[in-house]
Amino acid sequence: MSEFKAWMRDVQSRTEDTLSAVLPPANHLPARLHDAMRYAVLDGGKRVRPLLAFAAGELTGADPRRLAYAGAAVELIHAYSLVHDDMPPMDNDVLRRGKPTVHVQYDEATALLAGDALQTAAFEVLSQQVLADDVAVQLKMVGILARAAGSNGMCGGQGIDLYSVGHTLSLPALEMMHILKTGALIRAAVLLGVHCGQPLGDAELERVDHFAKCMGLAFQVVDDILDEEADTATLGKTAGKDAANNKPTYVALLGMAGAKQKAAELQAEAHAALAPFGDRARRLAELADYIVARNN
Amino acid sequence: MSEFKAWMRDVQSRTEDTLSAVLPPANHLPARLHDAMRYAVLDGGKRVRPLLAFAAGELTGADPRRLAYAGAAVELIHAYSLVHDDMPPMDNDVLRRGKPTVHVQYDEATALLAGDALQTAAFEVLSQQVLADDVAVQLKMVGILARAAGSNGMCGGQGIDLYSVGHTLSLPALEMMHILKTGALIRAAVLLGVHCGQPLGDAELERVDHFAKCMGLAFQVVDDILDEEADTATLGKTAGKDAANNKPTYVALLGMAGAKQKAAELQAEAHAALAPFGDRARRLAELADYIVARNN
Repeated sequence: MSEFKAWMRDVQSRTEDTLSAVLPPANHLPARLHDAMRYAVLDGGKRVRPLLAFAAGELTGADPRRLAYAGAAVELIHAYSLVHDDMPPMDNDVLRRGKPTVHVQYDEATALLAGDALQTAAFEVLSQQVLADDVAVQLKMVGILARAAGSNGMCGGQGIDLYSVGHTLSLPALEMMHILKTGALIRAAVLLGVHCGQPLGDAELERVDHFAKCMGLAFQVVDDILDEEADTATLGKTAGKDAANNKPTYVALLGMAGAKQKAAELQAEAHAALAPFGDRARRLAELADYIVARNN
Repeated sequence: MSEFKAWMRDVQSRTEDTLSAVLPPANHLPARLHDAMRYAVLDGGKRVRPLLAFAAGELTGADPRRLAYAGAAVELIHAYSLVHDDMPPMDNDVLRRGKPTVHVQYDEATALLAGDALQTAAFEVLSQQVLADDVAVQLKMVGILARAAGSNGMCGGQGIDLYSVGHTLSLPALEMMHILKTGALIRAAVLLGVHCGQPLGDAELERVDHFAKCMGLAFQVVDDILDEEADTATLGKTAGKDAANNKPTYVALLGMAGAKQKAAELQAEAHAALAPFGDRARRLAELADYIVARNN
């Protein structure tokens, strides 16, 4: 196993432990709700957002214990959004991470409540653990996550997505949708990781932010490519869904070759943003390559 | 108009203005989502939680501008919970505050997203405005609201409610459900209001907290009485719903006379908790009387 793969496994394992610790036990009343919350979050997913938080934290010498909570908070937001997104009024999907979706495994009311409570849990984690030396920085972190998750971020992107089904989006409109829907939370993961450590200068922070924006878009471009090319077993979720739902995708707009070129361009731009950091940004650079080259 | 009524009107009007200011404009993209968020929150409701925050803030000399944000944050959580609670997998209700519910007026996907984004907005408000002299106190306020809203608070209470339909709950189990479902957020409203001002001593804080717990239960007992006695037009929501759904209520458990006695006892206990504060607690005492005597 490469040293990078070993690092990934370690972060994924720390993330799993932290998520398990911050979520109430499955038998805690109401048990069906807590069981569903744990089902939605634990034992699954690549943990891309926690990986980004940990890698970004290496830029600022952040304590891994802080990074584990910051990464877990972002992952809780991500997990809640999947639970609600899979529900019948949205994507009505039955498979997620190779398992039945929450509303299929439990019921729709439980999926609704579990998603709601997972969102709250993210803010509980961010407010109840010590994540920064300066408490003002930590309060700022709450604001970063809230901004990224809300109607000017992830929820807004999901809304644009929802209302665009059956319409043709222009490339700028498609980018705006993804910047909000996926990019905002990926950016928050990077920024939260950075803020767990020593302060960066404004110019440095700007570079990290640019890296994060490139990664957010690259992640989505690759998602669209995989949705077209991979099969359901490899993805662990229903493949070919976006095309079947007539949803706008980078592949539909740019063609497969164009989408792959776009991903490569974003990867190069991300690397360029990191270059001045030298070896401190090694993990982030490796992670950028992994995100673009992944096959699920 | 009594001086108390004038104060209520003033707080309700400040709350409305603050909620309108913190929510994105209705034409902000995605417009349908933001329109639904504003529809769910604005121009309705008694604003009991902001009233409690303002009244509690009088105990600690809190700046009304801070109280307006703190009250708005709690109200955003309350509003999101109503949107999701009214959806078909939960209560499947069509009427709220005398208007069609959000999923009826818009659609279920929009109601799901709007509720999600309203919850986020609450934490955005709490993190992005100055609400306390000491930023550590403000971070604590984020934690208080998160704890009150999540699976150990409001969402947990909704879960117990959901899974108890058709079952007979004991009085202690019914109380636990309401302490979580309604009481937790009412308590958070009071504590957030207090924390906007000068610090209280531990014993004083304990008294306020006891007051808040009494109020949370009293509010629910009166809700159950009104659900049975009032008509739909007065309530602005479907009356007799809980009994029809075979949901456990205080009236079902204690009888109408017993429920009214329970409300009176909680009112007296709330007054007793406030007594040592003297005139500083006048608004809270008046509000306790209003909450028990209200007819909608």
